[in-house]
Amino acid sequence: MRRAILDKNDRLAERNRGFFHARGLLVLNFLSSPGSGKTTFIRESVRKLVPDLKTGVIVGDLATDNDAQRLRASGAPVVQITTGTVCHLEAEMVARAVKQLDLTGLNLLIIENVGNLVCPASYDLGEDMRIVLLSVTEGEDKPLKYPPMFQSADVVVISKMDLAQACGYDRETALANIRRVAPAARVFETSAKTGQGLDAWREFLIQRQQAQKALDPLGA
Amino acid sequence: MRRAILDKNDRLAERNRGFFHARGLLVLNFLSSPGSGKTTFIRESVRKLVPDLKTGVIVGDLATDNDAQRLRASGAPVVQITTGTVCHLEAEMVARAVKQLDLTGLNLLIIENVGNLVCPASYDLGEDMRIVLLSVTEGEDKPLKYPPMFQSADVVVISKMDLAQACGYDRETALANIRRVAPAARVFETSAKTGQGLDAWREFLIQRQQAQKALDPLGA
Repeated sequence: MRRAILDKNDRLAERNRGFFHARGLLVLNFLSSPGSGKTTFIRESVRKLVPDLKTGVIVGDLATDNDAQRLRASGAPVVQITTGTVCHLEAEMVARAVKQLDLTGLNLLIIENVGNLVCPASYDLGEDMRIVLLSVTEGEDKPLKYPPMFQSADVVVISKMDLAQACGYDRETALANIRRVAPAARVFETSAKTGQGLDAWREFLIQRQQAQKALDPLGA
Repeated sequence: MRRAILDKNDRLAERNRGFFHARGLLVLNFLSSPGSGKTTFIRESVRKLVPDLKTGVIVGDLATDNDAQRLRASGAPVVQITTGTVCHLEAEMVARAVKQLDLTGLNLLIIENVGNLVCPASYDLGEDMRIVLLSVTEGEDKPLKYPPMFQSADVVVISKMDLAQACGYDRETALANIRRVAPAARVFETSAKTGQGLDAWREFLIQRQQAQKALDPLGA
């Protein structure tokens, strides 16, 4: 049955992907443990990206709309998905949420998944890139202990670099572990608090959005 | 199908519970996000509990036996369960792992679940108490955002208190949120690094183990 659910999800994800391409949207699926700082990182990214990229956000949580409220402080339109007891977002939930967003003028869609370093890895949402966050407070071994998630990452964002010293973060080991599991992933070392790494991240997204528009005749 | 899996798990969990009671074991199921500090907290707890309680540990991870190796530094016997892609422990996995432990003389069994603040909440393992860790670096809102996990907690251990100041931890808000979701849970504010809270935690466990032995005629 899990197989059938995943097959169905994969088909709906491709439909999402086609829809997003036709609208010229670059779509990011943000994944991490609870408390890695996804919401704060997204909020600060959106602020940095204005006026080059206009962003919409879809955010998934079991309960509460705390994150949606925090994200609205960035000025972006935000739709909350409340999953109840479901531990991940599915393509169908995203398709329904997109209908509540005014896509006019948007060129970047950020999906903040449920905080969970296991299950969301199995569910394609139709994104162009998976962004996996790893905060320096979580321990350098997480890529080795949660390989399906990190193997699926196009980008790994190391977050909360401002806390690196306080928690004895071992940078070399963390980077080596990421390289071992996700050798092709781009890595950004960031702090949403101090702004570290946010300019490089911004440039990367602007380039990717432009490259995508150029490649896809339906995307313009 | 999920229903049937849970029904089967619940029956096997009760069988585990009967087995554990007959052996006089107090059994703890440790749950949290990845990187909340379960392994370090358990290792330091085991060290503190000698010679009053003799502890065995079962630890679950998707991949690697890193945690088992770290836990063996406490002197306790440790069995690793490698779940592959499964995002939680089940009663049957625990029953199989227990067969690999020499229970002679043990009076405390600690089960470290897969790091996941969602799915493991649905799976009874036959434990006497659920211990949910929340590190100060994760954000004070986690009890509200992951209610099934926190509602099922008998004890909430706040970990990494040594980082509270560096990450701007709001103690009052965190405690209020825990109280709201888990009003009956005992709360321990701890740091495995500085030792904060570990004496109170140790006393609590010794009392609970003695109370259980007294209540259960099969437990002596």
